[in-house]
Amino acid sequence: MSVTAPAGFVAAGVHCGIKENGAADLALVATEDHRPATAAAVFTRNLATAAPVQVSQAHLAETNGRAAAVVLNSGNANAATGADGREHAKRTCDLVAAELGCAQEEVLVCSTGLIGIPLPIEAVASAIAPLTAQAATTTEAGEQAARAIMTTDTVAKQTWVDGDGFTVGGMAKGAAMLAPNMATMLAVLTTDAEAEPAALQAALQRAVDASFNTLSVDGCTSTNDTVIVLANGRAGAAPEADLADALKYACIGLAEQMAGDAEGATKVVRVRVMAAEDNGQAATAARKVAESQLVKCSLYGQDPYWGRIVSELGTAGVNFDPDRVAIAYGNVVVCRDGIAADHDPGLLKDTMSARLIEITCDLGLGRGEGTILTNDLSHGYIDENMRTS
Amino acid sequence: MSVTAPAGFVAAGVHCGIKENGAADLALVATEDHRPATAAAVFTRNLATAAPVQVSQAHLAETNGRAAAVVLNSGNANAATGADGREHAKRTCDLVAAELGCAQEEVLVCSTGLIGIPLPIEAVASAIAPLTAQAATTTEAGEQAARAIMTTDTVAKQTWVDGDGFTVGGMAKGAAMLAPNMATMLAVLTTDAEAEPAALQAALQRAVDASFNTLSVDGCTSTNDTVIVLANGRAGAAPEADLADALKYACIGLAEQMAGDAEGATKVVRVRVMAAEDNGQAATAARKVAESQLVKCSLYGQDPYWGRIVSELGTAGVNFDPDRVAIAYGNVVVCRDGIAADHDPGLLKDTMSARLIEITCDLGLGRGEGTILTNDLSHGYIDENMRTS
Repeated sequence: MSVTAPAGFVAAGVHCGIKENGAADLALVATEDHRPATAAAVFTRNLATAAPVQVSQAHLAETNGRAAAVVLNSGNANAATGADGREHAKRTCDLVAAELGCAQEEVLVCSTGLIGIPLPIEAVASAIAPLTAQAATTTEAGEQAARAIMTTDTVAKQTWVDGDGFTVGGMAKGAAMLAPNMATMLAVLTTDAEAEPAALQAALQRAVDASFNTLSVDGCTSTNDTVIVLANGRAGAAPEADLADALKYACIGLAEQMAGDAEGATKVVRVRVMAAEDNGQAATAARKVAESQLVKCSLYGQDPYWGRIVSELGTAGVNFDPDRVAIAYGNVVVCRDGIAADHDPGLLKDTMSARLIEITCDLGLGRGEGTILTNDLSHGYIDENMRTS
Repeated sequence: MSVTAPAGFVAAGVHCGIKENGAADLALVATEDHRPATAAAVFTRNLATAAPVQVSQAHLAETNGRAAAVVLNSGNANAATGADGREHAKRTCDLVAAELGCAQEEVLVCSTGLIGIPLPIEAVASAIAPLTAQAATTTEAGEQAARAIMTTDTVAKQTWVDGDGFTVGGMAKGAAMLAPNMATMLAVLTTDAEAEPAALQAALQRAVDASFNTLSVDGCTSTNDTVIVLANGRAGAAPEADLADALKYACIGLAEQMAGDAEGATKVVRVRVMAAEDNGQAATAARKVAESQLVKCSLYGQDPYWGRIVSELGTAGVNFDPDRVAIAYGNVVVCRDGIAADHDPGLLKDTMSARLIEITCDLGLGRGEGTILTNDLSHGYIDENMRTS
């Protein structure tokens, strides 16, 4: 169950010819009646925004937060492609609008894949008609769309949340170049709840902050990151707080799937900083630990070398007293008052060998808390990323 | 030729018992007559400063910039070791002072190695007398000291610079946890030039900024980084600018040796950002590119995937216009005006296969320039860092 879980949405996924291996590389999510729904989106903060990001931002501004469809391709980011790239993104929207009978600016566009390579627009163009013709409300159609946005993902990422009288569905991709604001990630969420654009935007931003923005696979923020939500109102009005919660849980579900499928990763690691001066400092410190190459190597080696964690905390740019810090892997406290703590080595070994490791850093200063989800740094990550062809 | 190159310095290196493989792990650099020289030092900015850093800082403050000796151990960082660690660092200085006949505060102490493990102080203590007894002015003695501070270094790092009527010598260690302010690095420089403490400190800070602080192997800043210079005045006064230059070249020489011996590295990479808004922004952008896991993986794979470089520049937090950027590997411009540029693929392949790769990023905005020296991210780096034992 995915983007087609809420009433009134269709989806599709086809192979248009970008991926050389014949896998699906073009996806559509649209309202069933092709009429615009309320739309909100959060985009990358990278200044080198890809063409589709620029076009989608412009379209949302023109419509004041309405959209009937999202078209997404994988295998090519259409980033660092200049004016031609923007033309290609617009033309993609045009073609979808023509097929659906909606306005061009009611179509949003996303791309993910390699940067700096011209989008093969003719391949995309020739597949728009079959894509829209295939679009259906079925679970299978939702899954096809989720598959068509995969790059180095090994599994399709889908979620749905049953609200009180409404449903939220979602799909996402993301495997590396993953760091907040947001990640090399695309996500499309759908809901049959009714919502005003401003409220939907606020709810989405909070959902993204609580989910994708707590994820950092490698500290690299992509040119294409986009999270879009469409709310078609079929199920009528939902309390704002309920819809916001459902969106948050859907996004958290997708973010956890991303962490679990990160390139080459053998571990999913939750770095939690507590008793920091404030929440902002806690999040900053957690991110510094989570993005440390040396900490990540230790986690890959299942080595509880907490000295590297202390060292990262000391350079995180937050208030820090090395004589107050405590560090635990799972329930095993390995450092207390800044020095080595007696612990059960057998329990520690078991903790380090698990796929999910939780690291808790207690700074002993205040009440701030923050968490970042990350992975280990493995031979597999290097293998995935050392060559693009 | 190393720390014993200038007149009036002795050095030694012995095995005291920290390293299990029997390699040298305790080093001494001292004035030949055991009288204090003018001393200056630059320490890590990590807030989790190791005990020896705290003790050396206190000693330099007490003496107003005078020191007769530096004692250094490898294999144990004496960091995250609390009050006991500070006692051990002080006792090490005491024992050296007693042997040399100088004051305890005239001895500085450095450690490098694993964090969070109590320093085996009895092993260190028992080796101080043989260490000081061996100290000699020979080239061999200087090399023994340089070897005794190695951790995962594969070669000893030594340098000397002939000034006009004076000499600067130096030794260093550093292979990972290397990022400025400074790196997991120790360096001791010696000179027979005469200098006042304040001038020597200013010259050393400039030399460190121009050398070690432009180096980032993995973005991790250690708990123990220390650069110390001793000036014994044997050769008489030298013009301040001449001494500053010689110190700078000595530090650059050591930094380049560190980059060349970085853990697991197959490439030495110079990331140069030009035409940035100002020099500070150029340095920030160069560091963002140099510390990117994805860029480093591409370099390991000899893959000229400049899209990742554009993406990093876009998230560096500096002024950036994606339509103006140009990127070159060596002399091969692969991106111009933000999009792919025609180039000679054969020449590009040759450029990527070299051990030294220079990446130039022209932001097309202003006159700011900055350079960071780094390495690729290899399987070997992970092998070195995944387990400490």
